[in-house]
Parts: sequence; structure tokens; C-alpha cells
Amino acid sequence: MKISIIGTGTVGRTLASKLIELGHEVFMGTRNVSEKLATTEKDNYGNPPFSDWYKANSKVRLETFSKAAYFGEIIINATHGGSSIEALRLAEAKNLSGKILIDISNPLDFSKGMPPSLLPGLNNTNSLGEEIQKTFPYSLVVKTLNTMWCGLMVNPGMIGGGDHINYISGNDIAARTKVKNLLRQIGWKDENLIDLGDITAARATESLLLIWLRLQGLLQTGAFSFRIVK
Amino acid sequence: MKISIIGTGTVGRTLASKLIELGHEVFMGTRNVSEKLATTEKDNYGNPPFSDWYKANSKVRLETFSKAAYFGEIIINATHGGSSIEALRLAEAKNLSGKILIDISNPLDFSKGMPPSLLPGLNNTNSLGEEIQKTFPYSLVVKTLNTMWCGLMVNPGMIGGGDHINYISGNDIAARTKVKNLLRQIGWKDENLIDLGDITAARATESLLLIWLRLQGLLQTGAFSFRIVK
Repeated sequence: MKISIIGTGTVGRTLASKLIELGHEVFMGTRNVSEKLATTEKDNYGNPPFSDWYKANSKVRLETFSKAAYFGEIIINATHGGSSIEALRLAEAKNLSGKILIDISNPLDFSKGMPPSLLPGLNNTNSLGEEIQKTFPYSLVVKTLNTMWCGLMVNPGMIGGGDHINYISGNDIAARTKVKNLLRQIGWKDENLIDLGDITAARATESLLLIWLRLQGLLQTGAFSFRIVK
Repeated sequence: MKISIIGTGTVGRTLASKLIELGHEVFMGTRNVSEKLATTEKDNYGNPPFSDWYKANSKVRLETFSKAAYFGEIIINATHGGSSIEALRLAEAKNLSGKILIDISNPLDFSKGMPPSLLPGLNNTNSLGEEIQKTFPYSLVVKTLNTMWCGLMVNPGMIGGGDHINYISGNDIAARTKVKNLLRQIGWKDENLIDLGDITAARATESLLLIWLRLQGLLQTGAFSFRIVK
């Protein structure tokens, strides 16, 4: 399948490598292709230059946001939450229309100190997932994978025999089902995919970052997640 | 130990019964004692009249908010989050001063439809736990037990061999330690008591209600909680 990832940070790269390994055709979108490839320094988040990774992952095709979105049958938003809407606008609604748009980002606000809070207007009674759905009404937004470290997204079996929660929400049932199929391919067990229904559930899953970040500080690792006990 | 519970709803009653069973002296605070005992109808939340429960739990002493707080060495806030500050004001700061004030409530806002959201101004960058601490600076607020159904608070062994998370936060380390001792008495295993540090962590644990309420709807039970997988 042709899958396009909007964003070239660690999360996007991690997903891209896994999707290539699974045999998918992967496009990655960035603001400016030549600038991205010319950069030889680490980015603001300490990631090694994209070009190094790109050489080692030569099956991935780097394109502009807009072209990447155009090529993809499924689009994954892997940008930082604070710039997701802007990046998706650059990807252009026409290229996202009628397609599944998997949103794995979180609306983290680093401006008020650490640990970050959630961005004003995108929490409690709203969410980034909903905001993306409202902004791109002809896309089928499915929120998933946003409650864990990217290493676990593509390798759930790394901890607890793979038995930990991955929440899914989105307004379109068929889209949720297709995303579940993709997640099963990646290695997620069906019984750990918790379908919360419509996209308003993103309010709940995005707010899990508040406890996740505290626990990451306490456990000194991102390689943890949650299981439901009942 | 003399323990006072502010609030006479299901949560308060459940805790009171357990604390009596453990040999504690339990006071419960209400706005108007004679009115509370005279009521023969179910309350707004469908609880049977308090007087019925009170007859069956005759060791509990019902008092005004203020007197109950005065008698207690430890105070537990088991009111609804939206009226906690008001109830605690009626309990009077002087009666809460220098004491551990365990806050098990959540700032749920039922005014915007179901599932409830969190009250404006008491989420994300603030919390009810913090607001109580700010309002009663001479009390030692410890937030705990607020992320689960009351049946599990007093009987963690009901599910998963008791192995599920109970978060603790509060600004005073000694107070957190004393509350952990009380929780161990109730049946909580030490390894499941997760100490998140200061009271700002209440932002994270209170926001867990957003996912908890969605899962309660999905699982059709409150008898569930979470375990960390790592």
C-alpha cells in the first residue's frame, strides 16, 4: 500500500522504517525537500540529520508535504502537535480528501515548563484529533498510537508479550477497521486494540500524555505502557 | 485513628465502612445533620437514603462538616469535585490546619453532556488537588484513590490479584508516607502505590477520568483499572 507520513522526526522515521520492512511504499512529507536533505546538523530535538537516516532507508521517498499527501492512499500525521494543522494545510485538503488520515500526534505545550501541558483549546472539551477532523472534513481521521513511545508503536512485543493497550477512535467505522488491519500487520494483537468509537475519544487518549510524561520521568524510560486489569 | 470523611455519598460510605472494619474511629461530615438523617428518599445520584446506611453502620458518627473536620486526625475529601472547595470551606480551615487532607475527588463537569469533561480552570495546568492545597495552605493535601471506582478503593484484590495502579501525590513527603501506610492497611500492595511527587501530578491523575469514563462505558463496569507494562 502507498502510505505517506507527514513529518520527518523520530516518530515518522520509526514508522517509515517499519512500513518499508512490511513491504509498503512509503512517502515522507517535509516543508522543503532540498533544505531537509542539505541539513547536516542535528535538529532542535537532537535527532541526527535526516539525510543520514535517508541514506540508510533508501526505499523511502522524500517529497513536499503536498506531493507526499497526493501519493499516499493512507496518510499518517507524525508532526509535532503544535504544528500539525499547519503542516496538514500545506499537504492540502484536496490531497487528503477521501483518505484515511491516521493521527498519532499529541497537542503538547512546552511553553509553560516541564512536563508539558496540553495546548489551550485542544484539551478536555476538544482535541487535536477532532480539530484535524473539523479542518479536513473530507478526510477520515483515525486517532491511534499516540499514547506510547514510538519504539513501542512499531514493536509492541518489546514489553509484556505485546499485551498493552492501543486505543483507536475515529468517526468512520470502516476506516477504523482498515487501520486495525494495518496495526495487526505491524504486530498489534486484536485484543489489545481498544476501539473507543468516534473521534471525541481523542480527548481522553491525548490527555493520557499527562500521566505518561510523569511516569516517563519516574521510570526513566519510554518503554512502558498500560494494560487494563478487570 | 480518628478519620473524618467529608461527604456522605457512595464513595464516602464505602470508605467509612472499610475504615470502621479496620478499627478506626470514623466521623462523617454533612451540611445539616438533622436534615440528612430525616431524608427518606434516594438522593440525586440514586443512592438509598443515608439514614438506612447509617443504621447499619452505627459506629460511624455523623457530624456537621466543621465538627467532623475538628474531630479527625486525617480528613478525607469524598465530596463531588464541583462542590469540594465549598464543603471544605464549611469544614473550616482551622479544623483542617496541620492535618493530612486526602483528596479522592475529581473535578467532573456534567454540564456539557456525557461523558463529563473536567471543570474549567481545574484541568491541564491546574487541578482540584492543587486548588484545595492553595485554598488550605496549612493542610497537607495528598491526592490518591481518585482514578478508580470506590469498590476497588477499599478492595483492590477484587481484580487482578490487587495488582493495579494507585497513584499518590502531595507536596509533603511525610504525609504521602503516612497515607501509604493507611493504604497498605486497606489492602494496597506497596509496589502498586505509585508516588508521583508533588501535588501538580493531580493534573495527570484527575485527567485519567477522561479515559476511565470512556472505558467504563465500553466495559459496562467500574470494576477495572490499569497496570503498568514495562
